[in-house]
Amino acid sequence: MPQGKPPVVPDDGLTTRQRRNRPLVLVHTGTGKGKSTAAFGLALRAWNQGWPVGVFQFVKSAKWRVGEEHALKVLGASGEGGTVAWHKMGEGWSWIQRPAAEGEGDTPDDTANAARAREGWEQVRRDLAARTYRLYVLDEFTYALRWGWIDTDEVVSVLRERPGSQHVVITGRDAPPALCAYADLVTDMTKVRHPMDTGQKGQKGIEW
Amino acid sequence: MPQGKPPVVPDDGLTTRQRRNRPLVLVHTGTGKGKSTAAFGLALRAWNQGWPVGVFQFVKSAKWRVGEEHALKVLGASGEGGTVAWHKMGEGWSWIQRPAAEGEGDTPDDTANAARAREGWEQVRRDLAARTYRLYVLDEFTYALRWGWIDTDEVVSVLRERPGSQHVVITGRDAPPALCAYADLVTDMTKVRHPMDTGQKGQKGIEW
Repeated sequence: MPQGKPPVVPDDGLTTRQRRNRPLVLVHTGTGKGKSTAAFGLALRAWNQGWPVGVFQFVKSAKWRVGEEHALKVLGASGEGGTVAWHKMGEGWSWIQRPAAEGEGDTPDDTANAARAREGWEQVRRDLAARTYRLYVLDEFTYALRWGWIDTDEVVSVLRERPGSQHVVITGRDAPPALCAYADLVTDMTKVRHPMDTGQKGQKGIEW
Repeated sequence: MPQGKPPVVPDDGLTTRQRRNRPLVLVHTGTGKGKSTAAFGLALRAWNQGWPVGVFQFVKSAKWRVGEEHALKVLGASGEGGTVAWHKMGEGWSWIQRPAAEGEGDTPDDTANAARAREGWEQVRRDLAARTYRLYVLDEFTYALRWGWIDTDEVVSVLRERPGSQHVVITGRDAPPALCAYADLVTDMTKVRHPMDTGQKGQKGIEW
């Protein structure tokens, strides 16, 4: 995005610098490709600023994010930039039964997965309270919200009360309206065309 | 994106493996945030596969992409994963007079910048012919197309004829329809809300 003059100067009693450095909640939603890749691209900027980055991966497949995970771990260990912590919530946290595109309206009836999702969220809460990271990537977090495993109002309340300067980016389809209403930035990655539409399956280097 | 069964199996004479590994052209367009960050996130996956990655940066500001540039250079030099070449086309290639949001419909009348844009594109052409990279990031390339500095039909023709297995991701607003029609994947990053709407300027770690 360009820098430059914002179209509105709010009457919020903040200086430009205070307003500029206000911590942000960003949501990447929609059916298109790029929600998570953009979040990990953002993590590169945070790393470059020397910020501690915490990734909480709410996805199932072992293949997903292997590239991002490897890259961010190499960066975190490079001695330059910030640190990187990558949470898959243990093997027990590879929990989301990620539905096929057709079934995405369904609510899985899975008490164990719901409990694991809550565990992950409780860790995020603790880290926010302790100011453990400066950027949090909650990857595919919206599914746990949509399925009711974690209460959206509670999430918004915790985000609203988080101390210090902690940015949070949340990815996944169908972000709840209450989350989008609270977020500072919402981008809908809209699918115009995807190779799978014409019969092409995912491939290494592109999808993982 | 999920892996899984594509909805259509095309009658193209290719095996599933051949079809799966077909090189892709990806376009990230739209007015929202995430077009370039998603492209650089994709570069992490390519790097992880050991692919040589070539970035061609068609933007002006020195601040932009500093985080991504630093991170990808550290990765490229890490001895793990692939190599990374970052082209800003020299100082003479920091050329795009990136317009403000209001002025984005305008065509800059700038012969020198048009010539530099063509120089950059000619280098991309040569690299494609030589199979220099496995992933090309043509960042903010659409502006040069929209302003007529580079002919879109020529670009599509060069992409169509490129040899081997070379993926190309192109970012920027208002991708020309002919490019989108040819591309394998098009995502429109749609702005739902941006902090600048409410008077917040860009900040480090988030915008650069």
